Amino acid sequence: MSERLVIIGGVAAGMSAAARARRTNPELEITVYERSGYVSYGACGFPYFIKGEIPAVKNLLARSVEQFAAERINVHLHHEVTAIDRAGRTIRGVNLQTGETFSTPWDRLILATGVQAFRPPLPGSELAGIFTLRTVEDALAIKTWLAAAQPRRAVILGGSYAGLEMAEALKAHNIETTIVEKQARILSNLDEDISAQIQALLMAQGVDLRLGSAAVSFIGEKLIHDITVRVTEALRRAELPESSRPPINAQPLRVREVQLSGETLPADVVIVVSGGRPNTALAAQAGLALGPTGAVAVDRGQQTSDERIWAAGGASEVYHRLLQGPVFMPTALNANKQGRVAGTNAAGGRAEFAGTVGASVVKFFDTTLAHTGLTERQTRECGLDARSVSVTSWSRAAYMPESSPIHLKLVFENGTQRVLGAQMLGADGVAKRIDVVSAALQAGWTLQDLSDLDTTYTPPAAPVWEALLVAANVAARSA
Amino acid sequence: MSERLVIIGGVAAGMSAAARARRTNPELEITVYERSGYVSYGACGFPYFIKGEIPAVKNLLARSVEQFAAERINVHLHHEVTAIDRAGRTIRGVNLQTGETFSTPWDRLILATGVQAFRPPLPGSELAGIFTLRTVEDALAIKTWLAAAQPRRAVILGGSYAGLEMAEALKAHNIETTIVEKQARILSNLDEDISAQIQALLMAQGVDLRLGSAAVSFIGEKLIHDITVRVTEALRRAELPESSRPPINAQPLRVREVQLSGETLPADVVIVVSGGRPNTALAAQAGLALGPTGAVAVDRGQQTSDERIWAAGGASEVYHRLLQGPVFMPTALNANKQGRVAGTNAAGGRAEFAGTVGASVVKFFDTTLAHTGLTERQTRECGLDARSVSVTSWSRAAYMPESSPIHLKLVFENGTQRVLGAQMLGADGVAKRIDVVSAALQAGWTLQDLSDLDTTYTPPAAPVWEALLVAANVAARSA
Repeated sequence: MSERLVIIGGVAAGMSAAARARRTNPELEITVYERSGYVSYGACGFPYFIKGEIPAVKNLLARSVEQFAAERINVHLHHEVTAIDRAGRTIRGVNLQTGETFSTPWDRLILATGVQAFRPPLPGSELAGIFTLRTVEDALAIKTWLAAAQPRRAVILGGSYAGLEMAEALKAHNIETTIVEKQARILSNLDEDISAQIQALLMAQGVDLRLGSAAVSFIGEKLIHDITVRVTEALRRAELPESSRPPINAQPLRVREVQLSGETLPADVVIVVSGGRPNTALAAQAGLALGPTGAVAVDRGQQTSDERIWAAGGASEVYHRLLQGPVFMPTALNANKQGRVAGTNAAGGRAEFAGTVGASVVKFFDTTLAHTGLTERQTRECGLDARSVSVTSWSRAAYMPESSPIHLKLVFENGTQRVLGAQMLGADGVAKRIDVVSAALQAGWTLQDLSDLDTTYTPPAAPVWEALLVAANVAARSA
Repeated sequence: MSERLVIIGGVAAGMSAAARARRTNPELEITVYERSGYVSYGACGFPYFIKGEIPAVKNLLARSVEQFAAERINVHLHHEVTAIDRAGRTIRGVNLQTGETFSTPWDRLILATGVQAFRPPLPGSELAGIFTLRTVEDALAIKTWLAAAQPRRAVILGGSYAGLEMAEALKAHNIETTIVEKQARILSNLDEDISAQIQALLMAQGVDLRLGSAAVSFIGEKLIHDITVRVTEALRRAELPESSRPPINAQPLRVREVQLSGETLPADVVIVVSGGRPNTALAAQAGLALGPTGAVAVDRGQQTSDERIWAAGGASEVYHRLLQGPVFMPTALNANKQGRVAGTNAAGGRAEFAGTVGASVVKFFDTTLAHTGLTERQTRECGLDARSVSVTSWSRAAYMPESSPIHLKLVFENGTQRVLGAQMLGADGVAKRIDVVSAALQAGWTLQDLSDLDTTYTPPAAPVWEALLVAANVAARSA
């Protein structure tokens, strides 16, 4: 009898693991349990679906259950796994559509339960019009609410990348939008000067900010019949299976205000993007070791403390090449790569996750912000003797009409002149320019190495002197 | 008395050398002789000036003679150096405006004479309407001719990057355009399959191609009075100094046809972009060693065979990091970097040119084509045991409306799996994606290293799986 691989969670990490396990071992019996009604979806595309740039949620589905079935990967939607029995090598769960419980034996197990959306345990958090943004159902619920309830004022809880993207999406619907951020600044994972620039750009777009502030309660009002009818109608038009419909019309009350500690913000839609944490409930129940980040502890082969269980994606630690230790960095590429590694190893192959260098990017309104490596603040926290230079160059030759400034902050180590990180900001051509710095970090380059890089030049696409080279030269001279 | 540095040629390499020499040595007496009427100009911008995207040629001038004078860099325009006396350490030349000769002593000399435009020695090559494209005066002459003579049919001699850019520029003026290329394919520096794709794209844009074909003569007709008047008027409007005016109206005959060996093409404007060679006449006359590429031989410090003479830019060899030898690759960035090295060393500092990895890019119509490292053909010529994979990914998430395909051909060595080069083609986001491969080449990466790269992802700017990672994975599996 062939071995049985069970995968819990069917988004980026889980389905990458499934596909790679199949490729590694054609004999393996592969079963995936997914709590939501969708697998293999591009969650990063939700803001663009909500904004209206992407017409239908189906555009975000990379592969269907049927396509996986053709590779003998059995996917069970609406199946929530509730417990892992390590000794007996079974999982137990419940079919959310029928309410029936199930139990399944496994020989190898992959945990790909992702990031758990956070719904703040505050008075009124159950009100209609308050949404998290993690699943296809969440995205559909928001989109439906925008169409049916026609909100005019929004509050976004969380000044993270998703908060910025959702601000753009909501402003596109002419909704007055306020971002509420607990920290004293937006994007507190980056350096202070970068946050300040982003805040100015958001305010210039008409996005209100409440920094160092948090919701304490939500105030509701009766969901008027008219909206209920419109929501129901919108859901019907969306042709969703009954089980996938967001439970908007089950709520008798809708949100009207968000109370902060010192202020009340009117809001007829609230999006909570803050507070996402590794979804480790199952792992913890099963007694698997968690790491210092709170995620499931894994080795470089994505193996957990149980040699028959692997973990990948947002639920698991991500190895950081520069910090040489685990971080919480649930990016789609990390999830895909970790999933492949977990799938390969669980299927009897051999693979290692090389790790992240911390690369990330967000586009909001006309600005793209990219980051890789360590911020200056992080270098201080690590006790590194580091410094930075900030320069401005152009996205294309300065004289070309489409050219726009690129601001670059380059962080490097004193003495060794080793490149440690970069933060880059501009309207044009930022996202992929930062990849070169990620390559430099992976290769352990110095400023001189970066300065020596043979970058391409043509007036409509690049300047002779890339910001990266300018910064490397300025930094080397100042060192 | 302070030492005297003389620089021959005042474009990218020459003025970079001058600026860097000044920074290195505040005492040095620095004099630049430039044959044309302009220094420090962005020659790569000419096609966009001719097309009309850039309103005035002055947009292409990075720094003025006055700005250099403020740094005590003396620039003499319209001064052609005609001989170098190495024993007597003087140069001789002629002021092209006055006809007066001059002689200047030097202690150190930098040759930055660039690439010599090629005017084919064919019957009729002196006809009005036949242009090279190297100097500001050339660009002005073409622009003036387009405005005054209103050409309807153009022939471009040379299927190089500049030929493609000029085809776009001329088509923007609704001029029927034919590219004539001696080789059997466009862009013969790249691989055959890439050339074939480019040819198809050019033909789809309505550009005619004559491959494996060359001009044998040009046929003229009388330049009608009307055009003469209009050209003269256009030149007057351009407010050019008399000396800078292109000699259009001195010609009694204008081009009407280009004769190829088996065919005659009607043409009322001809642009010759082929045949550019290192401008080594002065160096050869002075007995400086030339290298195997025909350019001035230099060491990594840009020093020639005379220890008091340096050379930089298109006239000099360019060190290729992968080939570990000299190539002819007169890119603006190479010229800038070599100029800085030559200027530093000539001023008593110490610098080395790290070399090129062969990075280049061209945009034409809606397509960007980028290349770095070795082509598959070059690997065969070098006797390397190499292979390639070709993949297609997206410039942004596949579901985003602005996303477009990116085709990548990745060349790698069998056995070692070392990355050797890449050719990339697409409508969007190509130019800077290739820089990552240049970094990989500089770092000596394998396919696995490239596959491990932490690239950024956000739907509006990048896909999860970059073409580079897809290609690295496909190649590694096939190896």
